[in-house]
Amino acid sequence: VARITLLTDFGTADGYAAAVKGVIATLRPDAIIDDAAHDIPAGNIHAGAWALDAYWRYYPAGTVHVVVVDPGVGGARRAIAAAVDGHFFVAPDNGVLTRVFDDAAGTGVVVEITDRTLWSDVVSNTFHGRDVFAPAAAHLARGGGLSQLGDVIGDPVCFTLPQPLTDDDGTVCGEVVHVDRYGNLITNIPQSLIGDAVLVQAAGRELALRRTYSDAGDSEPLALIGSRGLLELAVRDGRADEVLALATGAPVVVPGGRSTP
Amino acid sequence: VARITLLTDFGTADGYAAAVKGVIATLRPDAIIDDAAHDIPAGNIHAGAWALDAYWRYYPAGTVHVVVVDPGVGGARRAIAAAVDGHFFVAPDNGVLTRVFDDAAGTGVVVEITDRTLWSDVVSNTFHGRDVFAPAAAHLARGGGLSQLGDVIGDPVCFTLPQPLTDDDGTVCGEVVHVDRYGNLITNIPQSLIGDAVLVQAAGRELALRRTYSDAGDSEPLALIGSRGLLELAVRDGRADEVLALATGAPVVVPGGRSTP
Amino acid sequence: VARITLLTDFGTADGYAAAVKGVIATLRPDAIIDDAAHDIPAGNIHAGAWALDAYWRYYPAGTVHVVVVDPGVGGARRAIAAAVDGHFFVAPDNGVLTRVFDDAAGTGVVVEITDRTLWSDVVSNTFHGRDVFAPAAAHLARGGGLSQLGDVIGDPVCFTLPQPLTDDDGTVCGEVVHVDRYGNLITNIPQSLIGDAVLVQAAGRELALRRTYSDAGDSEPLALIGSRGLLELAVRDGRADEVLALATGAPVVVPGGRSTP
Repeated sequence: VARITLLTDFGTADGYAAAVKGVIATLRPDAIIDDAAHDIPAGNIHAGAWALDAYWRYYPAGTVHVVVVDPGVGGARRAIAAAVDGHFFVAPDNGVLTRVFDDAAGTGVVVEITDRTLWSDVVSNTFHGRDVFAPAAAHLARGGGLSQLGDVIGDPVCFTLPQPLTDDDGTVCGEVVHVDRYGNLITNIPQSLIGDAVLVQAAGRELALRRTYSDAGDSEPLALIGSRGLLELAVRDGRADEVLALATGAPVVVPGGRSTP
Repeated sequence: VARITLLTDFGTADGYAAAVKGVIATLRPDAIIDDAAHDIPAGNIHAGAWALDAYWRYYPAGTVHVVVVDPGVGGARRAIAAAVDGHFFVAPDNGVLTRVFDDAAGTGVVVEITDRTLWSDVVSNTFHGRDVFAPAAAHLARGGGLSQLGDVIGDPVCFTLPQPLTDDDGTVCGEVVHVDRYGNLITNIPQSLIGDAVLVQAAGRELALRRTYSDAGDSEPLALIGSRGLLELAVRDGRADEVLALATGAPVVVPGGRSTP
Repeated sequence: VARITLLTDFGTADGYAAAVKGVIATLRPDAIIDDAAHDIPAGNIHAGAWALDAYWRYYPAGTVHVVVVDPGVGGARRAIAAAVDGHFFVAPDNGVLTRVFDDAAGTGVVVEITDRTLWSDVVSNTFHGRDVFAPAAAHLARGGGLSQLGDVIGDPVCFTLPQPLTDDDGTVCGEVVHVDRYGNLITNIPQSLIGDAVLVQAAGRELALRRTYSDAGDSEPLALIGSRGLLELAVRDGRADEVLALATGAPVVVPGGRSTP
């Protein structure tokens, strides 16, 4: 069984995602194509990169992940395919694979997709998801080699992931990097940096660090370690983004108590 | 072929549903995973229970239905799996299976999912859909026994389903239990209670009981028997919830004409 | 492998699409059912016809396309199935297949679905997607004959597709026929009518005809040939429908420079 996942910003009203799936099904009739997410905000590469990071490692090795958040389609940006830890990726070279490459720490292989014999016969200037990425994904799902798609490149586009900073006294300064459907504010501060802190500062307030949502009272903002091992601000049965009036980029601080030596 | 359905309140922008699908695909590579619904309002157990009731019986016996509307994740609520009429269910024990158990009238078997050897190696406090329910579903989809997941329990959480009342003169008093995408107001009054009534009272109006939407004039509110055999208020080519200004819980009356004996 | 696609206006919160999938899975357990689009605006047959046109030809021959945008369900409208260029379609006879039949230029075969032995045992008046179209699709996906569903009809309902007009001097007058998720305004003017034009008139403005989105400046409205070979108005990293304040039906003109002979 070939399994292919599809993440796009196509929405679910225009039939665009189905066109991609149709091309794959034509070239690889037994492929199972899992919709991963189609409601990425239009053109939001950072949101696409974030959502991809939520699931790709949970799929089995050999899965082909197609990622089409592609505002620069048809322009100068390259089309790329990559192999990372046994998984395959097909995407525009615009940074949407940044978190995959960051995880891989240099162990992945990336090629530019240039062999037009594997593309659709007619290639539009506005829909490479259908005309370039889908046939490339089908090629990989058939066991075709990455190198047949094009030459290896060493400089795929990556955006800079904001890193948390730790002060001398152990205070950690990070920021909100994603707001999810529940209004949870997910930060770039990993559990490993938090130590035995019990409080978090954000939006001019102090939030208790709890184990899970239901450890807080109704409508009480809290902090916890979320499902990716990152510090997250949440409100039980409510939306932290609204209660705290915070968005992506907002600073979040974990105060350190360490006395200077 | 193993078929698994997935109903969640995850939305389709964060990649959460794909993480669940990835875990299942890793453990059961040939599983076909059907998305059932991911836009259940966040944390709305009643809406999840309603949507599940729309489809589970239409799937073949042996299907595993994964249901993740789980505001109490990581807290005291149990994780459960159930076998009802040949179908399997994996869900938090928060009432989201109420309508399944109500249908089954005591014939189902329910276990608490406690055997951690079947869970993911790392279990987060906020995403049991991925770390507990997905591996349990894969276990059942492989033909694994329900009893291997944990011990039988006799007291799964169920919420009280509002029941329609019938007066001495045959008048039936019910209420709106769901508003669907079309703005149709679906009540808890089954066809069997309606007899030969031709009128329904709601929102201070009388609505004619018709056979289908197109039996009414444009923008005219009507009543009919919907696809689950329940009385439903609708507006042809419009939204009954807006035209009648009603929501879940609103009273609906079918007047009886029966003279008191 | 039997592949079935499903396009509806059911949304993704009520479980209706899953009921259709369940019926198909029961009758054809190994069928792969691809969600094509469920967020067609409620009852919008034109939008459904447009979305279907985006993908059906990209699927392999033999695919069964189920299309349920069905505001007249249970009324006088017929249920139909069709074979066009090796693809199968199951839909209400309300015009939602107009673009398929238009493409086929009379080569398709259409039957009215009348053989109730192939329907579900209980047929509701409001959900033929589940009770009529799903079993018909499963029948076709099993290799069952079109003619077993019912008799051939020669007059399926089609709506009139607006056609662009060309003046004596080569000026082409068309209109916007769809607004997609990105706010792109797609017209009914095919590339073949445009010749060497470099400007397009819409909303009282002149827009440069470019190759792709990124050939324009930020927030600059442009015209281009979209992924279906049709003239399209767009705004780089923005929404043309908002910037130009246009909607479906708005006139778009490609001025001709040809001198009258």
